[in-house]
Amino acid sequence: MKIIIDAMGGDNAPKAAVDGAIAALRDFSDIEIVLTGDEQAVKPLLGGQGYDAGRLTVVHTAEVIEMNDAPVKAIKEKKDSSMVRAMDLLSKDPRAMMISAGNTGALVAGSTLLVKRIPGIKRPALASVLPAAKGEVLLIDGGANVDCRPAYLQQFGIMGSIFMSKVFGLEKPRVGLINNGGEEEKGSELTKEAYQLLKAAPINFAGNAEGRDLLSGGFDVVVCDGFTGNILLKFLEGCAKTILGMLKGYIVESAQAKLGAVMMKGAFTKLKKKMDYTEYGAALLLGLRGGVMKAHGSSNGRAFYSSIREARKFISGDVVSVIKEEIGKLNQATAD
Amino acid sequence: MKIIIDAMGGDNAPKAAVDGAIAALRDFSDIEIVLTGDEQAVKPLLGGQGYDAGRLTVVHTAEVIEMNDAPVKAIKEKKDSSMVRAMDLLSKDPRAMMISAGNTGALVAGSTLLVKRIPGIKRPALASVLPAAKGEVLLIDGGANVDCRPAYLQQFGIMGSIFMSKVFGLEKPRVGLINNGGEEEKGSELTKEAYQLLKAAPINFAGNAEGRDLLSGGFDVVVCDGFTGNILLKFLEGCAKTILGMLKGYIVESAQAKLGAVMMKGAFTKLKKKMDYTEYGAALLLGLRGGVMKAHGSSNGRAFYSSIREARKFISGDVVSVIKEEIGKLNQATAD
Repeated sequence: MKIIIDAMGGDNAPKAAVDGAIAALRDFSDIEIVLTGDEQAVKPLLGGQGYDAGRLTVVHTAEVIEMNDAPVKAIKEKKDSSMVRAMDLLSKDPRAMMISAGNTGALVAGSTLLVKRIPGIKRPALASVLPAAKGEVLLIDGGANVDCRPAYLQQFGIMGSIFMSKVFGLEKPRVGLINNGGEEEKGSELTKEAYQLLKAAPINFAGNAEGRDLLSGGFDVVVCDGFTGNILLKFLEGCAKTILGMLKGYIVESAQAKLGAVMMKGAFTKLKKKMDYTEYGAALLLGLRGGVMKAHGSSNGRAFYSSIREARKFISGDVVSVIKEEIGKLNQATAD
Repeated sequence: MKIIIDAMGGDNAPKAAVDGAIAALRDFSDIEIVLTGDEQAVKPLLGGQGYDAGRLTVVHTAEVIEMNDAPVKAIKEKKDSSMVRAMDLLSKDPRAMMISAGNTGALVAGSTLLVKRIPGIKRPALASVLPAAKGEVLLIDGGANVDCRPAYLQQFGIMGSIFMSKVFGLEKPRVGLINNGGEEEKGSELTKEAYQLLKAAPINFAGNAEGRDLLSGGFDVVVCDGFTGNILLKFLEGCAKTILGMLKGYIVESAQAKLGAVMMKGAFTKLKKKMDYTEYGAALLLGLRGGVMKAHGSSNGRAFYSSIREARKFISGDVVSVIKEEIGKLNQATAD
């Protein structure tokens, strides 16, 4: 299994990518890693850390796409950047998977241009795994498509369902439509129409998911436009921080509560781990002819390691081929 | 100050409304309360509780709008319902304020039909006060208008700003636009255009508010369409429950953590209080010729009491007149 990593993307580049790659090479004997990036920065980080160096290749690149670069312009002009080269390599080897913690807009635009969409897919979408009360839930689209049409949401539901089935091993993932009410007739112009399309899709459609249901464990996949998804993902981050920050404020007011918090340290650590995105690897860009993962910009070595672990499952599950097959069937049925 | 309460709305009707009204009559000598509802159900709850009964009137109504009634149909057909009668009374006395814990759709539709919009207001909007890391933040629209145009969002910003200034006493409330990125050029078709309109409005517009900024304390008002707002409000409820539920699960795994949690009981109680909607009164329906408050369907007596306390501030701040004046000026300026 080949995993291509844009070593220069993200706040902690290239150290985070290199550390994650080395840790993964030690733990997983079935992977091969290609790092794209500045040789002079990457090579000094590789020395003597007890791993099989024969399964690691560094492809030198001279440019870097920065976080504030305009996406399409950067992809077109920085042809020798670590991100563009990683995409080039992926497009030649679609059974591989690429990981980047770089500029999200550039990754979405570049993947669409260079890795290319699966035939019949209208828009690739970002899928993120979130912690739920029981297990996990996949949110799709997390921000690739700000303005959506109903048919996009139908495809997001199909892709998300395939992902949870192939990567998480769920038999019939329950797919929900994020909506402002539980009843079928509720919704915006977009979601009312999307509801009917999801109902007709070859998935286990479980109806509307209201805001309070998203993390309840009642759904395995929740579908929305990228505007809503982006706001929800960042709101979750903000809520967890705000709620725990408030609690901390009340704890320090009392010596007894402070002692109690010390005794609860183990429980807090587990909660922090459960809410920690580094445990969940990265977001997936689904709908492309190869696997593309977007790691958080602030990813550390541990987060890259988790991403590589998830990438292995994505490759084993053959997610790209299954999406291709299902979308082909659906379009065939619609054309008939 | 006259406060009209739909005593038959909500899960705990009519007891919750009556209990809240009596407690408020005891604490606030400057209010007069009108309860609309079934006399036979309401009157037995009023007996001998040591308050000034001279400031309480019961207006008998024979019908009730149920939670699952179709909104517009219910308003048109149930003319002798506690909700419709409360609206009738408010429309004759626009300095008063009405409170209902009943069917939200019926309340929004009915208020627009019977209380009527302020001239120049395109759409009334639901405004909810949320707990933030520092102080509070007003979210508007919380669900009255599922599909919005940019001009609606501009008016929501103006109304929200007036509310936080007149009711919370903030000098120049910082108004943010809920968006999927911090930069001016980010957004959906709707928010890109709304950004420019909010920038031009006579408010302290502080730019885009990303999901993680909503509760950070960096904004006093955050503006969005009612689809996004409804999902965010319910997601906040779900997040708080899920996060604290996870923590509880980890606590019961260890005897030491259980003891620690007991010692932290005070801190947990404060957090619960801070996150408790009953402390925040209700949502406001802004943009109408009278003040309309939507209390949570599960409101208890304490929640009604809080709503009445907030209603007093709304009346004192003369929010309706100030909105009327500001929208008049804005429309005049646009016409010039």
